[in-house]
This record gives sequence, C-alpha cells and structure tokens, in this order.
Amino acid sequence: MFSCAFVEGDLAIADGVVVGTAPGLKGKREIDARGAHVVPGFIDAHVHLESSLLVPESFQRAVLPKGTTTAVCDPHELANVLGVPGIQFFLDAAARIRGGLRDLRERVPCDSHGLDLRVMVSSCVPATEFETNGGGTLDAAALAPLLGHAQALGLAEVMNVPGVLSGDPLVIDKLVAFDGRPLDGHAPLVTGRALSAYACAGITSCHESSELGEAQEKLRNGIAVWIREGSVAKDLDALAPLLTLATSTSVGFCTDDRNPLDIAHEGHLDFLIRGAIRKGVAPEVAYRAASWSVARHYGLAGPARGGERIGAIAPGFRADLVVLDDAATCAIRDVLVGGRFAGELDLPSPAVSTPPNTVRAAIPEEVDLVGPAGMVHVIGVRAGRILTDRQVAPSDGAGIRRLSVLERYGKGGKPANGYVHGFGEIDGAIGSSVGHDSHNLVVVGKEPRDMRVALASLAEVGGGFVVVQGGNVIARLPLPLGGLMSLAEPATIARSLQELRAASAAIGCFLPEPFLQLAFLSLPVIPSLKLTDRGLMDVDAFRLIDVRAA
Amino acid sequence: MFSCAFVEGDLAIADGVVVGTAPGLKGKREIDARGAHVVPGFIDAHVHLESSLLVPESFQRAVLPKGTTTAVCDPHELANVLGVPGIQFFLDAAARIRGGLRDLRERVPCDSHGLDLRVMVSSCVPATEFETNGGGTLDAAALAPLLGHAQALGLAEVMNVPGVLSGDPLVIDKLVAFDGRPLDGHAPLVTGRALSAYACAGITSCHESSELGEAQEKLRNGIAVWIREGSVAKDLDALAPLLTLATSTSVGFCTDDRNPLDIAHEGHLDFLIRGAIRKGVAPEVAYRAASWSVARHYGLAGPARGGERIGAIAPGFRADLVVLDDAATCAIRDVLVGGRFAGELDLPSPAVSTPPNTVRAAIPEEVDLVGPAGMVHVIGVRAGRILTDRQVAPSDGAGIRRLSVLERYGKGGKPANGYVHGFGEIDGAIGSSVGHDSHNLVVVGKEPRDMRVALASLAEVGGGFVVVQGGNVIARLPLPLGGLMSLAEPATIARSLQELRAASAAIGCFLPEPFLQLAFLSLPVIPSLKLTDRGLMDVDAFRLIDVRAA
Repeated sequence: MFSCAFVEGDLAIADGVVVGTAPGLKGKREIDARGAHVVPGFIDAHVHLESSLLVPESFQRAVLPKGTTTAVCDPHELANVLGVPGIQFFLDAAARIRGGLRDLRERVPCDSHGLDLRVMVSSCVPATEFETNGGGTLDAAALAPLLGHAQALGLAEVMNVPGVLSGDPLVIDKLVAFDGRPLDGHAPLVTGRALSAYACAGITSCHESSELGEAQEKLRNGIAVWIREGSVAKDLDALAPLLTLATSTSVGFCTDDRNPLDIAHEGHLDFLIRGAIRKGVAPEVAYRAASWSVARHYGLAGPARGGERIGAIAPGFRADLVVLDDAATCAIRDVLVGGRFAGELDLPSPAVSTPPNTVRAAIPEEVDLVGPAGMVHVIGVRAGRILTDRQVAPSDGAGIRRLSVLERYGKGGKPANGYVHGFGEIDGAIGSSVGHDSHNLVVVGKEPRDMRVALASLAEVGGGFVVVQGGNVIARLPLPLGGLMSLAEPATIARSLQELRAASAAIGCFLPEPFLQLAFLSLPVIPSLKLTDRGLMDVDAFRLIDVRAA
Repeated sequence: MFSCAFVEGDLAIADGVVVGTAPGLKGKREIDARGAHVVPGFIDAHVHLESSLLVPESFQRAVLPKGTTTAVCDPHELANVLGVPGIQFFLDAAARIRGGLRDLRERVPCDSHGLDLRVMVSSCVPATEFETNGGGTLDAAALAPLLGHAQALGLAEVMNVPGVLSGDPLVIDKLVAFDGRPLDGHAPLVTGRALSAYACAGITSCHESSELGEAQEKLRNGIAVWIREGSVAKDLDALAPLLTLATSTSVGFCTDDRNPLDIAHEGHLDFLIRGAIRKGVAPEVAYRAASWSVARHYGLAGPARGGERIGAIAPGFRADLVVLDDAATCAIRDVLVGGRFAGELDLPSPAVSTPPNTVRAAIPEEVDLVGPAGMVHVIGVRAGRILTDRQVAPSDGAGIRRLSVLERYGKGGKPANGYVHGFGEIDGAIGSSVGHDSHNLVVVGKEPRDMRVALASLAEVGGGFVVVQGGNVIARLPLPLGGLMSLAEPATIARSLQELRAASAAIGCFLPEPFLQLAFLSLPVIPSLKLTDRGLMDVDAFRLIDVRAA
C-alpha cells in the first residue's frame, strides 16, 4: 500500500494482527501461499446495509467471502423509519459482531473476527420537508451523542446541498456538532462555485458522481471520490478512468445500494475491483483504492484507538486479508478476518427475532389511488439510473402507469397519486415498503384494484416486496425489520427475489431491477422528478408541483 | 494535491481560506499570477526549533520567506532543560503566533497569519538513564495533560527503541496515553523483526533513515519516511530515489536540526525540495511530499477542528500558499499565510525578555578535565554525520583531542572526560551548552586550561557557543533561553555564527559545523560511541563503558 507494489515475502500474524513481513518467519500454523497475492480486506466506503435486505449478521455472511471485511455504513433508511433507535441498531450490531478493541498495555488479543462495521451518523432524517417519515426529525442535538460510540465515525452523506449553500442553521449545527470528524457528501451534478461552497463546509467525500468530468472537479475541490456500483446506480464504467496512481489515495469504491442477488451473483467490492482492472486500472492501484485509501480517509489506517489499524498489510494492522489466486481478475482463494479464515468463523445469528410492525397505515377498500387525467407530468425511468427524466404526456399514454405513494406510519396521510414511464406495459401492480428515504409504501400499476391489493398485502406482513396480478398476490418477500430487512438467510432471500423478478416480468415489467428502481422513485434529493407521500416533487426547483401539466 | 498535477485556473481566498478554484472568479483585491505556479505552504514534518537557536517568533521570520508555513516541532531540547514548562513554552508560542481557529457557525474570519506551529509532545525526557538533565523524568502522567492543547498533535519521536521492544511499562504507558494520536518514531538502522515490532507498537513515522534500503523497509512496515536534511544529518541524496508518485503520500521532508546560517544561505524546506527535484523527483511529487502528505499524516488535511485544513489548495483549506516563479527550481516569488502576503505581516516580537540562567553548575579553577592516558576508546566524528565511529588509539595520538561533558544543572556532578577524533588538530577549545539531549556543557580542546575557560565563559552568560584560544575567548554567542536559544534577530545570530566558524577554523578545526557536531557527541541514542556527563556510552550495547580500552 505504501509504495503501491506487490512485495514477495513471508507474513506473520499473531493475536489477529500482522506482526511481521520480514523474510524467514516461522509460526505455529503455517500456510503455504506460494503463487498467491495477498491484499488488505476490501472496505466499502459507503453502503446502506438496508438495501441488501440483510441484517448485519446476515450481511457479513454474504460479503466476507467476497473479500469485503469493512463496511462504512449509513443507517439512513432505518433511521427514517425508527429515528435514533434505527442508528443505534447498527451501532449495537457493529459492536456485537466485531468484538472488542485490543489494549496494547494489557496484551489482550484481538477478538475481532467479524465484519468491521463502521457507522456514519445519518445527517438528513427526513431527507426533505416534502415527505413524511416514521423517525421524525433528527437534529444536531439528537445525533451528537451517537458519536460517543466506538464504531461511529462521522456524519453521513449530507444530502441537503441547498441547506449547506444557504447556511441553513439546522444543517450548519450538524456540521459543527461533527467538527473534526469526517463529513460525507452527496452532491450529484453539483459543480462550479456551488461545489466549492459545499467543499468549504468541510465535506470531504462524495459517492454521487456519475460523469468523469464531474468526479475530476470534485477531486480538484478536495472531495474524495467513491466510485459506486450499486444495483441501480452504476458509475464504474464512467469513473474508472479517474483512478490512476496519482489519484489513488483520494479514490475508493462503494456499493451504496446493492441487492443480495447482485452480491451473490456478481459479487460485492470484488466485482468493482474486477471491473476497474478490466477498464484499464492497474491492479495495485485498484487494491489500494479498495482498502488503504478509504481507511486513511476515515482515520482507520493511521493512529487508531486500541492501536489497531486497517487498510494495509504491515505490522500493527489487523489481519483482514484477501488471498488471491489471480490479482488481475480478483479471483479470491481465501479471506482472513482478524487473522482467521472467514470460512472457519462461527458467525452469530441475527439478534432480533420478532420486530414490531412499522406499517401502521390503514389501507381501506375505498383508498383513492387515481391521479388526475389529461396532460400530466410523468416521471421517466431509465434502467439502471436513479436520476429520472421529466416528461409531459397524456395520462393514458403508451407505457405510462399509475404510481402512488402512501404514508405508512399511521400519521393519517392520503395517497399521493402520479404517473411513471419506463416500467413497461405492466398489467398488475408492483408494491414495496422500501421507498427512499422515508420508506412509505410505493406502488406502480395499471389498475387501482391491483395496487390496493399490493398495499394491503404489504401492511399485513410489516412491509416487503409484492407483485399482484388479477387481484392476487403472485410473489412476496416480507421485510419485517422496519419494512426494510429480512431475518432470513441470504440464500432464502435471493431465491425469493428471483421469484419476484420472474413475477414482475410475467406482468410485463421489463426493468431488470424493478424493486430498486421503485425504491428510488420517492427519493426527493435525486433529480429530476419524484413522487413522495406529499405529492410530485420537482427536485431541480426543490418544491412540490401539480401532477397536471400547465 | 489530490491528483498530483498542476491545474491552470483562478483561485479565490476569503477570510484567510481558499474558497474557490472555479474559472472566472472576481475579487476585491486581484493578483495577476500568470506564469506562476502556486503550491501549498511547506510543512516541516519534524523539527527541533531549538536547533535554529531562534525562539518561535524569530524562527517564523526566518522560514516563512522560504515557504515553510507549518512546522511540526518536538520541544525535546527545552523539555530536557526545563521539563514540562519547556513543552508548554512552545504550546504557548504556537497559540500566540498563530491566532484562533475559525468557527463555521459564527462565521469568524480566520486570524491565523503566523507560522502554524504544531507540537509533538516529547516522549523521551531524559533520553536515557545514562545522563543527567535539568527537566527531570517526564512520565505518561506528566505528558498526557499536554494533549489537551489545540496545537498538540501526538507523541514525539520515541527514541527508546529497546524500551518499546522489551515492553518497558514506562514506555508502553506513554504509547497508551497517546492512543489514537500520531506516534513519531526514531529508529536509525533498525531493521527486520525489531523494526516490525517497533511498528506494531503504533509508531507511524521515522525521520532517521540514512540509507535507501533502510527507508524502503520502513515504508513496507507502514512507517512514513520523513527525508531529513539538517545541518549535520544530511539524508536527501541517499533518500531522494525513495520519493516517487507511488510513495508520495507516505514520504515527507523535515529539517530536524538546522542552524540559522543554513536556513539563511541554503534555505529551509525549499532547499530540500530543490535538491529532490535536482535528484530526479518530479516537481509535483516533491511538492506533494512537502505539504499534503505530511498534513494528512498528522490529521491536518482531513477533518480538522474549526473546519480549517492545511496541505492542499482547495476550498476550505487555509490559504497558506507559495507562489513560485519556477516550480523546478523552487524559486519563490511570494508566500501567503492565512491569505496574507508574508512580507506584509506584522509579525510579533519574542514574548520573553530576561530568561533565568539555567547553567547553575560551578566551574572551579581546579576542575578535572583530564581523561585516562594510554590506549583509549576514541569517538570518531565524520563531517555531516551524527553517527559516530568507534576507534581505539593512544590518548595522545594524531588528531585526537580531549572531550569533556559537565552536568550543568547544579546537581553536583563531576566532568566526564574522554577523547574524540575528527575535529582536526585544534589548538584551543570549543565549548557549547547545546549537547543533545540533556544539554550539559560539552567542550573539546587540546589543553584543560582552555577548556576550563570555555566552560566558565558559558556559565557566565547562561549558555551558548564559545571558542577559546590561548586562554582567551575569541568568539562567543550567548544563548540565554535555556542555554539553547537566543532572543536576537536571525541576522544577528547568523553573523555571530560566522564569527564562531571563523574562530573555530582559526584554532585548527576543519569541520564545517563544529557546534552542531559537538552538540551530538553527547546524544546516547545515536550509534556508536558517545560521551555523556556520566561517562562514555556504548550505544550499540546500550551501556556505559570505561574510556580505557581493555
């Protein structure tokens, strides 16, 4: 890492920590790794674990075999559902699965053998004033105490760019409360003086670049670029040229939102590394970005509490290691966590068993899911993009479908009804309790009847994903933990997701990821047009507008 | 810095901070810098300010014009003389000359227009048990409270390598007390498993590499390498090849001990940068190492208290800038500190006027400065090296001179007397109160009479440098602040040093830096043979030995 080159030699591990790299080392247990390359465990620079649908105990089972040994998570979704307890849930899980820190003085061995989960404290709950969430408003006073937790790093993606630029006291108070800690950014397409002002506020990273020039400008403004390849937002192809030896210590990888099918079939950070190398990035550079660069950024590679560091292979660094059969293709032979083979670890089961139902809204028979007729604003969806287009079309135009968002926390809201294009000529309905960032119930469909069935079916199981055809539920995945996560095994969830995909395709949806795309249709911080429980959101103008076109 | 390349464009500064780099910026005061390159102010990664003989107020007058805008200092010398108040002296000076931090919320402008002096808390006072200092023993309990100061960064060079390796509780207690803060190293020629163990203890930098292979091994062990070019220890030629684009974020520059003549005539960090580029380092790489790399290492470039960062040219970074007429030769046109031209600053005068005399030892007429005769161990001095050779020779051999070290704090010690080779056939005596690290009186000479005159002359003025010939003082520079520093202007001191050099040459000394070399003859942590007030020190065996050869 320090000289961005592979070095041939021996490697000694004791008490979970690398203790030597000098030649001729001997050990109680020796592993012959001739022909293999060993790199530091991969660090996901920004991830909403909720998007994996997996609780932390299950998430680590899914990603450790892929080489991801550290995840910097933002519990923004569960925080929107539950408030501070949603953040505390991840802090508690992090402490539970990772174990304690070493004490140099007392010579306590490292007992950290799980995923190293680090928590950035969610900064924007709710994301905007244009939606209703369950967790209420988390201000600086509510967030600051969370910093006392050993696994809490800093302030998660500051999505309220206008609030930063205008000096909104509620936003600035949060930045000040986290003074001296990393402040993550979220600035899609922000450029020029606005970007400079945003950087001036102390924001030091952003994972929302989708164009090379945009990412280059962020680097020039001192904002580290996390290259994201999620299940919907895929920026690797566009941004891979950014990653060179010169930029390698200011660039990292992240998954942001990645579903368990993609994790299982494509991979996790290994998939991004493989893709970057295929796009021409030197392997040494890719592995540096995947580990040391992010560890340094978050203060985990340098002096760290407990004398334990991550992100490199050198004495004093925790032995989170990936053993590669082939560095160029990121072909993983073994993964070590705290010096133990991941495959030999006795990973714990989820600590939660029966979470409370957070879908408290009633779904009456007569619920109104009909939007205005005539010329209307239509949200244009493109496969694999969370940015939407703005269209104006007749409400009964070709390929246009109804879209409704219903406040789910029992606060008495009525559905907001609008229109979407790009899901295909679906005949039936697709519904979800995962709807960034307030996670109200969102449903797309042809007829209100099927849409109502979808909503009622979700309410019944405390949230999840559902596909309805002809008034009947034809596929469903319950997500009882906050309407966001399952307690099932990763393989069970993956099987269920494949059934949901098949069911979506059967009713005419041609999007490869209908649920993830649906989940972003209510997110009012990503341009251009979105639908929240309060109505149609013009993100560019940052205000609600009428569904009827003028 | 972030992509290690020069970018053409405009640069806006407000309230002392860079606020924009977008094109087409306008300002109240505009500076046409066409044709110039602008780089971040240089950061000295490790410096004992005492070796400049200048108090901080004077030091900044000397180095700001050379582009050095931040110095990470270790007040190890004054701490050995005065104890904790010696460290507090530099912390107070740092707060005084730099001004306050910005508060993002209250929109207080930056009023930091002096040198940014950061203090690493001295870890090894006294350096060893084999010498007598004035400041006593500073243990973890004495040092930890100093960390509360805003300008205190971490623990300064941990010279007690054997103590670290053996797990000496007094040493480990200090490492634990500074857990989570940078721990500077000092590991000359330490290699293999010993180096790995030293790194395991959390040491993350070292400025004591003198050979390329040694420095490369340190990098591999996760220890950042500060390339040093002091007035005596000169490592730039050997280590310049280490500095490449690949290593540039783990390599920095430092001066360690540099006298005011060299600062005035050769330069400060600009001299190191110039030399590195001449040795083949790419200018962009050299400027990165001289600023951002060190700032990142010490946590000054990332999230920093007060939202103010240093080490790069980007929004939110303090406008500590060097404007270059020519990047390749480091030809400095202007230096800006907190957005103001250094030449326009109203720099303060030293705050101390009449310091107490710390040379409390009596120098009686009959003081015994005569070592044993016959075959003796002789310290071999080489010009420009602080490492010494071990020789065995007759005490009256060619080029061999008497060397005495006298405890100066009034604790009643008698002189330790030995022999040295390499000063030349001097006829007279050269004396100093600067004698690392305990700063007892050290004198080299031909005849005890001249040596006694030198000691008495030093005691009279509270310490300093002196040259004696034929029983008369022929040149002297008083250093009344702790026997280490002058309150005079840099130019006055430089003139006095030139007189001392001329006087040394006149009595036959052919070393270009006799006082700096003398100052390291009593430092028992640098191999191989040294003389402290307690006797002759075999550094390799780490024990006192008889001057008589067996």
